[in-house]
Amino acid sequence: MSLLVVGTVALDSVKTPFGNVDNALGGSATYFSTAASYFTDVRLVAVIGEDFPKEHIQFLKSRKVDTRGLEVQKGETFRWKGEYGFDLNEAHTLATDLNVLATFKPNIIDDYKGSDVVFLANVDPEIQLDVLKQVRKPKLVACDTMNYWISSKPEQLKRTLREVDLLTINEAEIRQLAGEASLVKAAKSVQAMGPKTIVVKQGSYGALMFHGHSVFSAPAYPLETVFDPTGAGDTFAGGFMGYLANTMNFTENSMRKAVIFGSVMASLNVEAFSLDRLRSLDYKEIEGRYREFKKLTHFEDI
Amino acid sequence: MSLLVVGTVALDSVKTPFGNVDNALGGSATYFSTAASYFTDVRLVAVIGEDFPKEHIQFLKSRKVDTRGLEVQKGETFRWKGEYGFDLNEAHTLATDLNVLATFKPNIIDDYKGSDVVFLANVDPEIQLDVLKQVRKPKLVACDTMNYWISSKPEQLKRTLREVDLLTINEAEIRQLAGEASLVKAAKSVQAMGPKTIVVKQGSYGALMFHGHSVFSAPAYPLETVFDPTGAGDTFAGGFMGYLANTMNFTENSMRKAVIFGSVMASLNVEAFSLDRLRSLDYKEIEGRYREFKKLTHFEDI
Repeated sequence: MSLLVVGTVALDSVKTPFGNVDNALGGSATYFSTAASYFTDVRLVAVIGEDFPKEHIQFLKSRKVDTRGLEVQKGETFRWKGEYGFDLNEAHTLATDLNVLATFKPNIIDDYKGSDVVFLANVDPEIQLDVLKQVRKPKLVACDTMNYWISSKPEQLKRTLREVDLLTINEAEIRQLAGEASLVKAAKSVQAMGPKTIVVKQGSYGALMFHGHSVFSAPAYPLETVFDPTGAGDTFAGGFMGYLANTMNFTENSMRKAVIFGSVMASLNVEAFSLDRLRSLDYKEIEGRYREFKKLTHFEDI
Repeated sequence: MSLLVVGTVALDSVKTPFGNVDNALGGSATYFSTAASYFTDVRLVAVIGEDFPKEHIQFLKSRKVDTRGLEVQKGETFRWKGEYGFDLNEAHTLATDLNVLATFKPNIIDDYKGSDVVFLANVDPEIQLDVLKQVRKPKLVACDTMNYWISSKPEQLKRTLREVDLLTINEAEIRQLAGEASLVKAAKSVQAMGPKTIVVKQGSYGALMFHGHSVFSAPAYPLETVFDPTGAGDTFAGGFMGYLANTMNFTENSMRKAVIFGSVMASLNVEAFSLDRLRSLDYKEIEGRYREFKKLTHFEDI
């Protein structure tokens, strides 16, 4: 079924202990839609500048991502520059040049308005809410956010949260949003703000999904080397939402499988810089990694 | 079967955001043997001072822990004073009074020398090695260690590691021991030093077991409130080794179950100060929590 993502398309310059790239393809909507494209049709809404390399658009099209929602504006594309030390769970932002993103007002084209599943990547919560006003009753709405919006626009973020079914958020951020150190209590408190399902992203420790009263714990895949963690959270969300949009099954069991597919995609993505690992995956590699997750976590009944 | 533990018996003063205790029962061998006592017979070797309250010895006896190896020496019992902030993964040591521990030389009594399974809790690696010289071919030898010994006695620690089958160690410590940021690489490097099985304790994130070429990831139990994390690692080791000593089955599947039993015991222990939660557990509570771990991690095959 159809999956709409609204987020950023960016040119990233990233340095890790294992190498560096300059102006490589990046952005939340890019990682998300590439990962999701292995599971379902994706409609991408984002803004780019006139300098955005055509080859990147060609790549997204080659993944059958619908790029009619990719708006080209006068000016330069959004750029992010960051660095990671040996603790790859934490990015150090060196520069953020919003450029065309500064004035972005997503316009959802008619063909996208009936999308079954919507993912609002980490952008201004007012923009997230504005997108929801443009679409017609999607079956599942999910959003992401970050510390910047929790601090600067808490009321606007809470208004958005009232309208979403599912929130993806990292550990430090959910603690900040709830004002509560215990993850379990923080999740309950945020569930009361709106989203009945919360996926807490824990970087190299995996993810915890709070779904109604149940909790699901998924590990991260233990990799020898993480080359570049950029986009891991959005890639996770892409695999997760892509699987859900494909099956349109939102039961507990299906959502748990979706968390594993998200973890699979994230674990593959961090094995190379930018989106290089996601460019030409074979679906068999995805299934193989899913089975590895099963082996990694299996233990017998009592 | 018989399980021998050599470690510390202490009086702990602990402050957490949820309360505090003064001179409460503590020590690695205490937590270990109490947890293990739910699974198997335990023989405890440690030293206490003349000030050690008799009621604590009575408690250990009530758990059927063999305390003939608990040596009473002139002077005061080892005391530890620590504090935890809201990040309960990290203890801040305020005071360590070694007292009788400073001159402790464990003497393994004849009845203990044929123990099937031996756990060397975190003490000086030279003492750990000396214990191994006194016992007769145990079927499984495990040890714990800490940053202090990794820094101050690396060569002695490496000599001990050559003689053990299994190492329990926390995440920061295995990175320090291996001089390697990647956990997977660090585990391989430490396996090459001797122990074929390594259990990396990750606090509120659970544990990773590297057993030969396989990896097993176990979550921590998501608790609303962790009252006192003191002794969680030793309680984990007690449940883990207690289960192994009970079954004497050291296959991959059995060791994975043991990791879950260790996690179960640790998750119960941190629900109260000192060993209060472990004092009067019903085995059904242990089984119930084991089943909760199964639910927490379950996901369907692809």
